[in-house]
Amino acid sequence: MPNTLPGFWRKTLAILGLCALSTAFGAYGQDFSNGKWLDLTHEFNEQSIYWPTAEPFKKTTVFEGQTPGGFYYSAYNFAAAEHGGTHLDSPVHFYQGQQSVEQIPLEQLIGPAVVIDISKKTAANRDYQLSVADIQAWEGKHGKIPDGSILLINTGFARYYGDQEKYMGTVKRGEQGVKELSFPGIHPEAAGFIATKRKIKAVGLDTPSLDYGKSTGFESHVTLFKHNIPGFENVANLSGLPPTGAIVIALPMKIKGGSGGPLRIVAFVPGR
Amino acid sequence: MPNTLPGFWRKTLAILGLCALSTAFGAYGQDFSNGKWLDLTHEFNEQSIYWPTAEPFKKTTVFEGQTPGGFYYSAYNFAAAEHGGTHLDSPVHFYQGQQSVEQIPLEQLIGPAVVIDISKKTAANRDYQLSVADIQAWEGKHGKIPDGSILLINTGFARYYGDQEKYMGTVKRGEQGVKELSFPGIHPEAAGFIATKRKIKAVGLDTPSLDYGKSTGFESHVTLFKHNIPGFENVANLSGLPPTGAIVIALPMKIKGGSGGPLRIVAFVPGR
Repeated sequence: MPNTLPGFWRKTLAILGLCALSTAFGAYGQDFSNGKWLDLTHEFNEQSIYWPTAEPFKKTTVFEGQTPGGFYYSAYNFAAAEHGGTHLDSPVHFYQGQQSVEQIPLEQLIGPAVVIDISKKTAANRDYQLSVADIQAWEGKHGKIPDGSILLINTGFARYYGDQEKYMGTVKRGEQGVKELSFPGIHPEAAGFIATKRKIKAVGLDTPSLDYGKSTGFESHVTLFKHNIPGFENVANLSGLPPTGAIVIALPMKIKGGSGGPLRIVAFVPGR
Repeated sequence: MPNTLPGFWRKTLAILGLCALSTAFGAYGQDFSNGKWLDLTHEFNEQSIYWPTAEPFKKTTVFEGQTPGGFYYSAYNFAAAEHGGTHLDSPVHFYQGQQSVEQIPLEQLIGPAVVIDISKKTAANRDYQLSVADIQAWEGKHGKIPDGSILLINTGFARYYGDQEKYMGTVKRGEQGVKELSFPGIHPEAAGFIATKRKIKAVGLDTPSLDYGKSTGFESHVTLFKHNIPGFENVANLSGLPPTGAIVIALPMKIKGGSGGPLRIVAFVPGR
C-alpha cells in the first residue's frame, strides 16, 4: 500500500482488504453453518410408488450375519424401474435425442429454489393442474422467478405418500390402474410458460408425474423436455421450504443412457 | 450511527456495515458462482466395477420409440448389487446394529474435503496401504485435519477404471477372482487413527474397497464402521481436487435398510 496516501484512505483500504477476505471466506467457504439441511427424498422400500405398469422396487438379501472370518457382514441386491420413488425424469424420457440422465450438467441440478404452493387448490380438486395464473400470482408476491432457479410445485400430495390409493387415486396395477390415476400436475400451458418465458434449470413436484394423473398425451413432459428441462417426481417435504431462499441439490444415480433414475434431492434452508 | 463520532470512525463503521452485509450474502447465499462443480462419480454401465462375487449392473429396455399416442418415449429397468460402481458403504455393511444407508444424517455426507494423495506410493506398489505416517505427513504441510472434514484418499487408481485387470488386479469372477484382487487401500492402523484421533464425517477413495485388495479380515471397514464413519468407494476424479478447500456433497440412493448403495458424489472447487 503506497505510504503517500492520506491516512484515512490508507486505513479505509486496509479495512476494505479485510472485508474482501471476509467476503471471500463466506462465498467460497460454503460451510452451511447457519441453516439446516432438509431431505426432500422418500426412502426406497417395498411400498415405494411406481407407475401401475412399472417394475416396483425390490431388495433381496445376499448375506446378513456373522461370517466365518469373524466379522459381521450384510449386503443386498436391488432392482427397479428408473421411474419410481423419488426420481428424476431425464429429457430423453419423452423427447428423442435429448439428454439422458448422466448427461445433465451438475450446474443444472443445483440452484436456488422457487416453491409454489398449490395445496389449497388440490385439496378442493385432486385433478388440479398448476396454471400460468398460479405462477403469475406467485410472481406478484415474490417477484419474477429468477433465471437459474429450480421450480418446485408443492401440491401437498407428499402427505399421502405411503397410501397409494390417496396418492395416485388407485391401487390397481397394469393398464386398468393407469385409467384410474388421479393426482395433480402441471398444466401444459404452464409448462410452456415455464419453458419459454422463464429460464429455469429444472422442475419438481410431489406427485408421480409432471403431467396430472388423467393426462394421456403427457404434453407437459414433452414441452419441458423439448427445452432440456429435467423433472423431479415424488419429491418429499416441500412444505418445509420457504417460497424463496433455499438451495436445492438434486443428484440422480448416474445411469449411462438412463431416461431417469433414483434421485437424492436435498435442500439447504438458511437460518435467519 | 451517532453523529458525535469522529469522521474517520463514522466512515469506517459504514464500510464495516457494508462489509458485514457482503459477508452475509456470501455465507448464506451459497450461490456457488465463483468456482466449479466436479463430478466424482463414475457412470453406471455394463463395465461398472463390482466385487468378483457381486451381481453386476444391468439395464434393460422397457420401451424406446414412438408411441401410438404420438409422442416419443424411452424407459429402462435396472438391477445391481448395492456395492458396485461409485457407491457408499454404510456402517451396517460390516458392523451389526450400525447405520443403514437411509439413516446416515445429511450433515455427515456434506462437508469440507481433505484430500491425501498417495498415488506415487501406489505407483511403486499396487498393494500399498495408506499409513498413519501418510496422514501425519499431510498434516505437517496443511495442518491438522479439521473436525467435520470428509477425508478422500487419492490412490491414482481412478485412471484404471474401465480396465478391470489394472483396476482390481483380475478379471476373474467368483472366489478365484477374490483371491487375485490387488489394489491399494487404508491400513487398519490408519483407519484406527482416523476413527479415534480425528473427527471426520466420512472416508472415500478411488478403489473398490476401503481395505486393500489382499485383505481378508476387512479390519479397516470394521474399525471405521464401528465409529459410524461411512465409506465412499470407486470415487472418480480425485486428482481434480486441491488438498483442502473443496466442498464434498455425497448423496446415496436412499434404500431402506440398505448396507450401501449407488452414490452420486460431487465437489465444489472454489475459484481463486
